[in-house]
Amino acid sequence: MWVTPLIERKRDHGALRPDEWRELVLEYAAGRVPDYQMAALLMAVFLNGIEPAELVALAGAMLDSGERLRLDHLGIPLADKHSTGGVGDKISLVLAPLVASCGVGVPMIAGRGLGHTGGTLDKLEAIPGFRTTLTVAEVQRQMELIGCVMIGQSEEIAPADRRLYALRDATGTVAQIPLIAASIMSKKLAEGIGALVLDVKRGSGALLPGLEDGVSLARTMIALGEEHGCRTVALLSAMDRPLGRACGNALEVEEAIATLAGEGPPDVLDLTMALGVDMLVAAGAAGDAAAARAQLAEGLSSGAALEKLRSIIVAQGGHPGVVDDPAVLPQADAVAVYAAPRAGTVISVEPATLGRAIIAMGGGRRTVADAVDPAVGFVVTARPGDRLERGEPVASIYARDAAGLRIGTAALERAITIADGEAAAPLPLVSHRVTGSGVQQLAPVG
Amino acid sequence: MWVTPLIERKRDHGALRPDEWRELVLEYAAGRVPDYQMAALLMAVFLNGIEPAELVALAGAMLDSGERLRLDHLGIPLADKHSTGGVGDKISLVLAPLVASCGVGVPMIAGRGLGHTGGTLDKLEAIPGFRTTLTVAEVQRQMELIGCVMIGQSEEIAPADRRLYALRDATGTVAQIPLIAASIMSKKLAEGIGALVLDVKRGSGALLPGLEDGVSLARTMIALGEEHGCRTVALLSAMDRPLGRACGNALEVEEAIATLAGEGPPDVLDLTMALGVDMLVAAGAAGDAAAARAQLAEGLSSGAALEKLRSIIVAQGGHPGVVDDPAVLPQADAVAVYAAPRAGTVISVEPATLGRAIIAMGGGRRTVADAVDPAVGFVVTARPGDRLERGEPVASIYARDAAGLRIGTAALERAITIADGEAAAPLPLVSHRVTGSGVQQLAPVG
Repeated sequence: MWVTPLIERKRDHGALRPDEWRELVLEYAAGRVPDYQMAALLMAVFLNGIEPAELVALAGAMLDSGERLRLDHLGIPLADKHSTGGVGDKISLVLAPLVASCGVGVPMIAGRGLGHTGGTLDKLEAIPGFRTTLTVAEVQRQMELIGCVMIGQSEEIAPADRRLYALRDATGTVAQIPLIAASIMSKKLAEGIGALVLDVKRGSGALLPGLEDGVSLARTMIALGEEHGCRTVALLSAMDRPLGRACGNALEVEEAIATLAGEGPPDVLDLTMALGVDMLVAAGAAGDAAAARAQLAEGLSSGAALEKLRSIIVAQGGHPGVVDDPAVLPQADAVAVYAAPRAGTVISVEPATLGRAIIAMGGGRRTVADAVDPAVGFVVTARPGDRLERGEPVASIYARDAAGLRIGTAALERAITIADGEAAAPLPLVSHRVTGSGVQQLAPVG
Repeated sequence: MWVTPLIERKRDHGALRPDEWRELVLEYAAGRVPDYQMAALLMAVFLNGIEPAELVALAGAMLDSGERLRLDHLGIPLADKHSTGGVGDKISLVLAPLVASCGVGVPMIAGRGLGHTGGTLDKLEAIPGFRTTLTVAEVQRQMELIGCVMIGQSEEIAPADRRLYALRDATGTVAQIPLIAASIMSKKLAEGIGALVLDVKRGSGALLPGLEDGVSLARTMIALGEEHGCRTVALLSAMDRPLGRACGNALEVEEAIATLAGEGPPDVLDLTMALGVDMLVAAGAAGDAAAARAQLAEGLSSGAALEKLRSIIVAQGGHPGVVDDPAVLPQADAVAVYAAPRAGTVISVEPATLGRAIIAMGGGRRTVADAVDPAVGFVVTARPGDRLERGEPVASIYARDAAGLRIGTAALERAITIADGEAAAPLPLVSHRVTGSGVQQLAPVG
């Protein structure tokens, strides 16, 4: 394939035809287009943009570069959720078993930590024995028996995306909305789902902080989903503070289990419910939001959702006792309480500062080869608007050693701003709902 | 070296520091920066530009990635010429021996055909036996004995440029003035010369047709030359018609020899003289233009320049008889005269059409691996403004076979426009002179 003229056309603000994108991506995935040509093209796309029809072709070819899960024979609706990433975001661990307990299959292909944000796979792997790599036969059988898997992207799923993502990561071409959307959707559409709910974060701790960028990303992903017959809806949710209290892999597993047991933080529960309602409705498993909400509430109060999580853990090799006893999870060697250094109002709790500290403490990756210590992290109880006395406990630090505690303490000092006067109102937990027909501002949730 | 942040900075319209460019280029030349990162950076440079200080650092590092010729001990001024490329441009074959015959050393590192334009190395290699690859020791000895070599870029000369040029060729990042300038100057400065005259082509057959682009390229190269203590001057010359009559490797060698023998076309002689005057003055070998012109005229009329060419050919393994008898050169099997298909005025003779036809006839390369047939080409006697009768001979075609003659005939039909009325005035042969202090429009030459 003669790629140079295509690069030149994109360089000169032209567009590639859908068949050109398709051939290019499939030849690239097959190793017949060199990385350096793709890198030059990606930079031209980054700087000059890509038209909607081009993006549909690009994402479609990324999807078609690999296999899709074949789950039609199950005869149940299939749905999934994707989050653009945050700090303390353990929603998938609550939502997937909850929705599966309502009779909707959830074949979730999840990701790892990215930048300062955590990843569902890293959290699951905090559970002793839990395997995130399953064979196609294992996925099939677990979906038949339990209706939910939570796994990583295998070699067979969107291999073009794997290669392209690694290349973008090395060539400064990650942070562009169309390329982000194509990468996410090529993986999610490979699940063979009929409905997808996107949790698009906004606020200082989001990868795209601005509302406008979030809406643009949501619209771009929705268009790609609809193009492939997948009903796609997005909620914009707050990431100007951590979600819930626990930040760190094992700590978040514990909080997710507590939420399924009816003892979680209100924001984790509220966001789970909001996303779950849209999943059930989009999947056709509930006639309207009220019916969906009732099904989800029943799944929680009956204990069915928690039992579903236990089944998933057992099926994927994890320690079954974790659901009943969080002490089964890896424990940090060094724990300390962080107290308010002064009296006043909590003005802000900066998620990115905490997320980066967790990485520095060993709980995340600087490079793909890094091992992750699942035990480290924070439990932050202070929330913007809280009134504090000096010396009042506001967070706990879970570290490997004294050096980790020092990193954690310094991070909390920077992350938690306490001052006199009033805090500005935080972002609404869920502020907007985006569908193929438009953007709707929502009434406050929770 | 962590390259991604540098790519991101250039992507976001920032600048790299000189030490960052230097490390990047040297690490790239050493194979420690992958092609895909350099390709992304080059595309960002192509689209977002590069500041003068960055370019100085880039070109300097390209130069320093390899060896320089060491010719100081010769105790003579050293100068060279570079042309941005044209059709029928055999000036180097005339100028290098002529200037060397005036006592100025010319250690010329020349290039091959590029796009529709010919290359000095391909022309020299039309001479049976001529070697364009010499060892460093051979270059030293030939410069000592003859004062002139005409060779290709060796592995030791600006290896970063070799790698970068191949990468740019494959990634659509060739046609940018700063990158072109850095590539040319990193090679020329490796010659260790004190003076350089640039022949920057303009007109439809030039790689950069517009006057403004030509001046910009000239200024950029001059700045790089002056930065390295090399006195650099540029002349802008016409490439809206072929230079001279002969187009094609062996045919151009014959015309170059004829010019040295006093029997060449006036434009070839005039441009040689114009460039030679600036070379001698810039090199300090002549006090002013009149003195330089007199020296050059003496070199021609005495036969010293032609003898210098003979010495170069002999030293580099070429057939010595070629200077006396052009029949020594490869001869085309199929030759035909092309006659004017109608009466009228020659409106234009399009160089690019002829250049591309020579490639199609086997006299140039489509890919680097192609073999070149030195015998094919054209001798075009018609010039813009000529009045022709129908059937009057205007060109000869030199081809491999009947198929080549058909290609050549069709090309001449397209290239030579004959119409009633007057032809627009062609571009002046040499229109502008550019130095570090500015651009000067010149009085007509020849």
